[in-house]
Amino acid sequence: MEKDKESVFNSVPEFEYQEKAVSIDAAEFVKLCESRRSVRVFENAPIPEDVVEKCLDLAMLAPNSSNLQPWEFYWPKSADKKRQVVEACLGQPAASTAAEIIVVVARTKTWKKHARQMVELFKTSEQKVPDSALSYYEKIVPFAYTQGPLSIIGLFKRVTLFFLGFFRPIPREPVNHQQMILWASKTAALACENLMLAFRAFGYDTCPMEGLDSRRMRKILGLPRDAVVVMAIGAGQRSARGVYGPRIRFPRDQFIKRI
Amino acid sequence: MEKDKESVFNSVPEFEYQEKAVSIDAAEFVKLCESRRSVRVFENAPIPEDVVEKCLDLAMLAPNSSNLQPWEFYWPKSADKKRQVVEACLGQPAASTAAEIIVVVARTKTWKKHARQMVELFKTSEQKVPDSALSYYEKIVPFAYTQGPLSIIGLFKRVTLFFLGFFRPIPREPVNHQQMILWASKTAALACENLMLAFRAFGYDTCPMEGLDSRRMRKILGLPRDAVVVMAIGAGQRSARGVYGPRIRFPRDQFIKRI
Repeated sequence: MEKDKESVFNSVPEFEYQEKAVSIDAAEFVKLCESRRSVRVFENAPIPEDVVEKCLDLAMLAPNSSNLQPWEFYWPKSADKKRQVVEACLGQPAASTAAEIIVVVARTKTWKKHARQMVELFKTSEQKVPDSALSYYEKIVPFAYTQGPLSIIGLFKRVTLFFLGFFRPIPREPVNHQQMILWASKTAALACENLMLAFRAFGYDTCPMEGLDSRRMRKILGLPRDAVVVMAIGAGQRSARGVYGPRIRFPRDQFIKRI
Repeated sequence: MEKDKESVFNSVPEFEYQEKAVSIDAAEFVKLCESRRSVRVFENAPIPEDVVEKCLDLAMLAPNSSNLQPWEFYWPKSADKKRQVVEACLGQPAASTAAEIIVVVARTKTWKKHARQMVELFKTSEQKVPDSALSYYEKIVPFAYTQGPLSIIGLFKRVTLFFLGFFRPIPREPVNHQQMILWASKTAALACENLMLAFRAFGYDTCPMEGLDSRRMRKILGLPRDAVVVMAIGAGQRSARGVYGPRIRFPRDQFIKRI
């Protein structure tokens, strides 16, 4: 398995595929990022359903860990469900005035099914798929993401990796359930950013809400045990009162560390 | 404090500020998201320094939890540091062939300093800042993010919130150090997505790397104790061999849950 790991990580596999880098209007993306603000009050105006669908599709174009796509997007359609979701968002205007609310969820167990799906897709692919890719999903992924009850397998991995780590660089995480939540939530957050930028690109605005009652939200959404609420995103048409003030960012030197 | 919390969450504060929603070319953003692929081999070509700087600035325009900006961006400039960072990335081509590598880090303790900075900025602001915003950073933020040694304060909060939660919706997290890591990492991941899209918008490509030796990376970057490595992002000019195959996404119905 180490051999496969080496070949996956350290060598470029044989394949016949090319995808040219298309040119993008950078100024338009700068304008997009600068115009995206957390909007906390929305006009009483709907978002066309096909726009929401398109934004969700763009969200799922975000990169994600090992392409295991551990994200889900809960979209309350009925007035009653939406009311409950607004309550779980503490009734804040960003939720109560939103035309739509998307609750982004991370899953820590769907990777098993998704790894199998990858293998099936590879085996039925017309493209030549390198063996290293197949064995990545058949061997390395199960090794990397299986933690076992009470993360006992993870603990075993942690100890093993600790000693292996003396001799060469080696991945250290995830080795317990908490780190699986972190793993899945990071990927889901990448999709959240795409989703918020997408709404802005289509003329709407959003507000990410982490200050919510995750316990109530779990019940309302009927989440399975391995699911974690990452954030709720309210979306709609920006109200004139929607942005509470100029954007504040601290001096960039606090954050950019040249080493 | 509850009163302040209520007023922050449930009412729209008084303020005199407006920021109109500018119009964006949505097709350009769609093209951007569709053309962003994880590129694992880069050409031996530099990225102009001002482009990297601009991309980092755009990364920091991502929304972030309570504007506490718990992100940092480590940028190895010396050949030696870069070599070490490549090693910590397991020597994978996405790192070894990258023109630049940005290691995105989440901080779980900088919120204290940043909350004070927010208060100072509010107090010296020419804009009228609502009292609820001031008390949010002076009272609610310390209450929400202080966990104490061994998360003992967090445990107290967790118990308190559990009982309060019977009567009304209430935020449940973060109540321990693991959840602070999750909190900061989610925000840092939002910035990661902006960063990757920004490089693409400026004609370059990226590969996010989570499979790295976080233990070695901590030493190489000289990270403080409260810092967590979120991911390393290799960036450069796409090689013809850089994209390993067509993008694979499973059927959208697996992920979009209308409820």
